[in-house]
Amino acid sequence: MKIGIIGASGAVGREMINSLEDYKLDVEELRLFASERSVGKAILFNGNPVEIELLTQERLFGLDYVLGAVSNELSKKYWPMIEMAGAVYVDNSSAFRMNDNVPLIVPEINGEDALKHNGLISNPNCSTIITMLALAPINKLSKIKDVVATTFQAVSGAGNKGIEELKDQIRALENNEEIKNEVFPKQIAYNCIAEIGSYLDNGYTTEEMKMQNEGRKILHNNDLNVSCTCVRVPVYRSHSISVRLVTEKKLDLDRVCMAVDRYPSLKLFDEDIPTPLASSNQDDVYVGRIRRDLTDENGICLFCCGDQVRRGAASNAVLIIKYLEDNKQ
Amino acid sequence: MKIGIIGASGAVGREMINSLEDYKLDVEELRLFASERSVGKAILFNGNPVEIELLTQERLFGLDYVLGAVSNELSKKYWPMIEMAGAVYVDNSSAFRMNDNVPLIVPEINGEDALKHNGLISNPNCSTIITMLALAPINKLSKIKDVVATTFQAVSGAGNKGIEELKDQIRALENNEEIKNEVFPKQIAYNCIAEIGSYLDNGYTTEEMKMQNEGRKILHNNDLNVSCTCVRVPVYRSHSISVRLVTEKKLDLDRVCMAVDRYPSLKLFDEDIPTPLASSNQDDVYVGRIRRDLTDENGICLFCCGDQVRRGAASNAVLIIKYLEDNKQ
Repeated sequence: MKIGIIGASGAVGREMINSLEDYKLDVEELRLFASERSVGKAILFNGNPVEIELLTQERLFGLDYVLGAVSNELSKKYWPMIEMAGAVYVDNSSAFRMNDNVPLIVPEINGEDALKHNGLISNPNCSTIITMLALAPINKLSKIKDVVATTFQAVSGAGNKGIEELKDQIRALENNEEIKNEVFPKQIAYNCIAEIGSYLDNGYTTEEMKMQNEGRKILHNNDLNVSCTCVRVPVYRSHSISVRLVTEKKLDLDRVCMAVDRYPSLKLFDEDIPTPLASSNQDDVYVGRIRRDLTDENGICLFCCGDQVRRGAASNAVLIIKYLEDNKQ
Repeated sequence: MKIGIIGASGAVGREMINSLEDYKLDVEELRLFASERSVGKAILFNGNPVEIELLTQERLFGLDYVLGAVSNELSKKYWPMIEMAGAVYVDNSSAFRMNDNVPLIVPEINGEDALKHNGLISNPNCSTIITMLALAPINKLSKIKDVVATTFQAVSGAGNKGIEELKDQIRALENNEEIKNEVFPKQIAYNCIAEIGSYLDNGYTTEEMKMQNEGRKILHNNDLNVSCTCVRVPVYRSHSISVRLVTEKKLDLDRVCMAVDRYPSLKLFDEDIPTPLASSNQDDVYVGRIRRDLTDENGICLFCCGDQVRRGAASNAVLIIKYLEDNKQ
């Protein structure tokens, strides 16, 4: 396979390279694309340095897959070029996610949808991937109707500049220096910010509505309603989500735990609790605190964590390619 | 008034002294009690040093009120001594909160219950005070049936030793030293811990069940069901709570906002968002992100923050005394 990565120098782009190594994809050639600032720098892939280059139409030719870790704007700009080059584009931006002819894929849940692609496949939102993985085995036992979710989102969700802003603020506080915030709307050090994305007319943010809109498409469940509150917390890596869900039928809790335990890429915590720290730098979603909801007899509460840069972005995209390759006709 | 404070050297005890000053209670004499470790140290009250002493039966005589900021165990031990001395005990521990003959008071909500006391009044749980203040005006418009709540609880909820543990861990990480955790069950620096209190048979923790059990008593609403998830976050001060509530009747959102805005001790955020940092070191509860729930037509979501050491503990206790004094027959 010949694979290209656009946005290769960012937090997600770099993790895509690690993930290609980890899943031992048979990559004959890797081309790394990024902005002028990074051109010429080299990143190791399987022990060999790969130089970052500027994206051109010419350099897209010959690629089988392109992994995208860029903004919606850039993704829209590059997609026609990738299409012309005949590569399959796995896009981490939200630009095309809700398009009817674009599969939105979490491989363990709806990998088969990816086989119907028209050259373009979208990677879902990070919190949505983590939450839907935790919910998928339960939705299989009985359709999930309602979800109330509150997220605890790590600063790396805003990329390397999010990480730097938290580090700088912690340092500034120690030295009694002025606190600056450019990435987040408030100081994030020792604080929580219940605002991620921009506001919609219904009072929810764009980030919050992704959980419902993308969740419906991934689970093939148009009856799913999600009230989500997205909160940024001073954690470097891994998103956590406090979930209360209601299923059509009342489910036995032991059966739910067993289904979670047996589902691919999930790790059940029944004695211990899952934490963002423990779930960092790996691809499993940790699920714990499974218990009966006290407000609806068909309700269940749980708490899940997952590394949103890896599991919620980079590895999910790489696993989409792996799924396509494993299921080639 | 002659007032005593037991546990005067702790985080809540010290804030009780500040709060007595802030609310300008007419304190003729203040006696401060703490453990042997603190005896002899002096704390300023209205500019004058007050020496910390050991609690004895003798030194309780003559006091009108005793404010308690000690463990359940110590509270149970001292209450008979306070009763014998004839003082009114306002207890911040959870030892007596659910006793039928003990009023559980948030003065703005159910202050009148305090007038029926038998010498002992309980201060509710910190997250419960903050959440119930945010819910009280809505519960007045239409009875609240169901609440799904997820808390973001500051380390100072575990007292001064909780603050020290976060500081020590941040320092240790910077110096590549070993991380120690004694106060919290996991590393709290750059992490979230979905476990506060001890587990009950239903899978909830003692801390989580307080929101329902104490909430019912404070709001005089035995139909209130609360599914709560309590999470410790690396924030020094102020708890935040993401709340989804369902009322008996469908409420107009503008009416809800107006009721919140007009309620004592609440600050409505409709343009900006409330954060734990902004709500620290003062006594108002900040309420924002008010919007319609997407899973129940009678549902409402909101996000609230409050300083749990002040509003959620020390000031609430002082305001109970103020209520009793203002409503003396």
